[in-house]
Amino acid sequence: MKIGIVGAGQLAQLLAHSAYQLGLETLCVTEEISPPAGKNSPLLIGSLEEANIMQEFVASCDVLTIENENIEVGLLQQLEQYKPVYPAPNVLKFAQDRLLEKQTLQQLNIPVPDFFDVGSEHELRHVLLSMGLPAVLKTRRFGYDGKGQFLIESLEQIPEAWQAMKAEPAIVEKWIEFDYELSLLAARNKQGEIIFYPLIKNTHQKGILRLCEFPLRDSILQKQAESYARSLLEHCKYVGVLAFEFFAGSFGLMANEIAPRVHNSGHLTLEATRASQFENHLRAICGMPLVEPEVIAPSLMINIIGNWPKLKISDFNPGIHVYKYGKKARENRKLGHITVLDSHKTLPEVLIELIEAAQR
Amino acid sequence: MKIGIVGAGQLAQLLAHSAYQLGLETLCVTEEISPPAGKNSPLLIGSLEEANIMQEFVASCDVLTIENENIEVGLLQQLEQYKPVYPAPNVLKFAQDRLLEKQTLQQLNIPVPDFFDVGSEHELRHVLLSMGLPAVLKTRRFGYDGKGQFLIESLEQIPEAWQAMKAEPAIVEKWIEFDYELSLLAARNKQGEIIFYPLIKNTHQKGILRLCEFPLRDSILQKQAESYARSLLEHCKYVGVLAFEFFAGSFGLMANEIAPRVHNSGHLTLEATRASQFENHLRAICGMPLVEPEVIAPSLMINIIGNWPKLKISDFNPGIHVYKYGKKARENRKLGHITVLDSHKTLPEVLIELIEAAQR
Repeated sequence: MKIGIVGAGQLAQLLAHSAYQLGLETLCVTEEISPPAGKNSPLLIGSLEEANIMQEFVASCDVLTIENENIEVGLLQQLEQYKPVYPAPNVLKFAQDRLLEKQTLQQLNIPVPDFFDVGSEHELRHVLLSMGLPAVLKTRRFGYDGKGQFLIESLEQIPEAWQAMKAEPAIVEKWIEFDYELSLLAARNKQGEIIFYPLIKNTHQKGILRLCEFPLRDSILQKQAESYARSLLEHCKYVGVLAFEFFAGSFGLMANEIAPRVHNSGHLTLEATRASQFENHLRAICGMPLVEPEVIAPSLMINIIGNWPKLKISDFNPGIHVYKYGKKARENRKLGHITVLDSHKTLPEVLIELIEAAQR
Repeated sequence: MKIGIVGAGQLAQLLAHSAYQLGLETLCVTEEISPPAGKNSPLLIGSLEEANIMQEFVASCDVLTIENENIEVGLLQQLEQYKPVYPAPNVLKFAQDRLLEKQTLQQLNIPVPDFFDVGSEHELRHVLLSMGLPAVLKTRRFGYDGKGQFLIESLEQIPEAWQAMKAEPAIVEKWIEFDYELSLLAARNKQGEIIFYPLIKNTHQKGILRLCEFPLRDSILQKQAESYARSLLEHCKYVGVLAFEFFAGSFGLMANEIAPRVHNSGHLTLEATRASQFENHLRAICGMPLVEPEVIAPSLMINIIGNWPKLKISDFNPGIHVYKYGKKARENRKLGHITVLDSHKTLPEVLIELIEAAQR
């Protein structure tokens, strides 16, 4: 069975790594000449907008998936005429657009911060005067790693914030005083079976995920998060892994956003659980039974961003795993990640520094 | 850090798979055009006997290892002039030759079946008349998967057995009435740290490994096997993973043979333990700390030999992992393996049949 992946970045690389352990083949389609997934997967180099690439891709593969939700839905709908695409293109529609996403969550009675669609600087000012500050202005589309966001703390910032949206459609959200952020990974297969991972606590810096701690053991939050995720998965008959990001605080849980794919915060499931998010995503889209992700050991994941820390051979204590995606170093670029099992026992100096820096 | 692997078969493929999780690169040198390891590792295609291939290989890599012990020691000694080679070529000398191997084990007071060096059919008859039958005649070199072996049950078979050796140097061993076969995987790193895996019970068919069951919990046998393996590892200052195969019976343990490399019986350590044999081999040869291989769950491994069983999507129960090496089907050829965690819970019909067939 061959899995076609639209994209060939690190998520495709990690999916291909796990596909190997299920006897599945992969084919990643990309316009990049030497992308991360080229390390462990065959590639189809070209644009899906070219008819011959599209034809070759759908003819070679049995089931199709994505590693990035910002793919034109129309393109995925074309693919869907030939082979199953998971998650389904109609699900991506609302995951791609912060306004539709928040409206969908609200419909399902999943709490979200107050939000308003804003079409002009004037409208933004009007909303802020009634909603109060601070607030976050966000483009409706293509936001990730804190891109396309502007934190407004005083009314004087309104013109600058509006400029930053570059005339893209935007929404403004009330700033939430949260204690911490967390994510819930869930998987649903074609047959409707659903599994959940234990919650992961996430620390961001400059809008980019830096540190994950697993598992966050809180049975009340876990149950709450699972019930929200279940209602979304069932509402849209979702197939595959979905990541649900929440704010946690005195208000309980509030949904921040969803990612309809395997998620950076779930990379530690490769070592920390019996079945990784990648394995369960592949199982889900192939229609295999899912695996309850029993915890093997508590663990940490640190994203390596911008440049590599100087790891010595003797730093590779038991439980440490290092993933290099094979991307050129660049500011704010995710170059890899390091997972640590049983972190209290095995942390070398260099990682302690990284973790402390991430928490500052 | 880049690991050079001499060979590019399934063991190289599995090493490359694990190297990825330690942030290590690999380069496999081979004369094959499309070998198994090409799936997940860069290749250097050519013969190490060509000076330019040898130069490129040693210049590209930081440390070198093997996936097959039957490589000319002289060639490895040449490599060793440029970069560290683990296990060391002088260790391979005795692992390549059943006579030297048995003599080394005997020297270390590790029990082995009675054996004699035989140089002619006449000598063979002479030995068998005093030693008794049944006995196994084996070529001293290049024996694996039961190749180069002949079980002699009556004196009339002597001419046929001798012919089967094709004039290669041979030894004859007393046939051992054993209860079962087992293997112990051990690793020793450059610093002299040693770890052992729990024992694995092995079932062979026609001389080829078919089924492994893990762990074999027997603290007396475990302790005995570890003490034998430790004395060998320390005797030759071994670096890397070594597999020690034993017969078990009323006599306790008797060494059958050693493999100075990662071993087919250890493939299940990928799922069944916290650190696979591949990870510990890579750690050992890089000088990283080793990982105590805590058991995650009892498991089974079935070798897929000759042709693939018909696995349906619904057969992929939780805990089942399937490895396809990407080799063309051929009689008696190892095409892949299937590992099952918690087998009592998760075995589909098709695997039950395979296991029963392996045990017949």
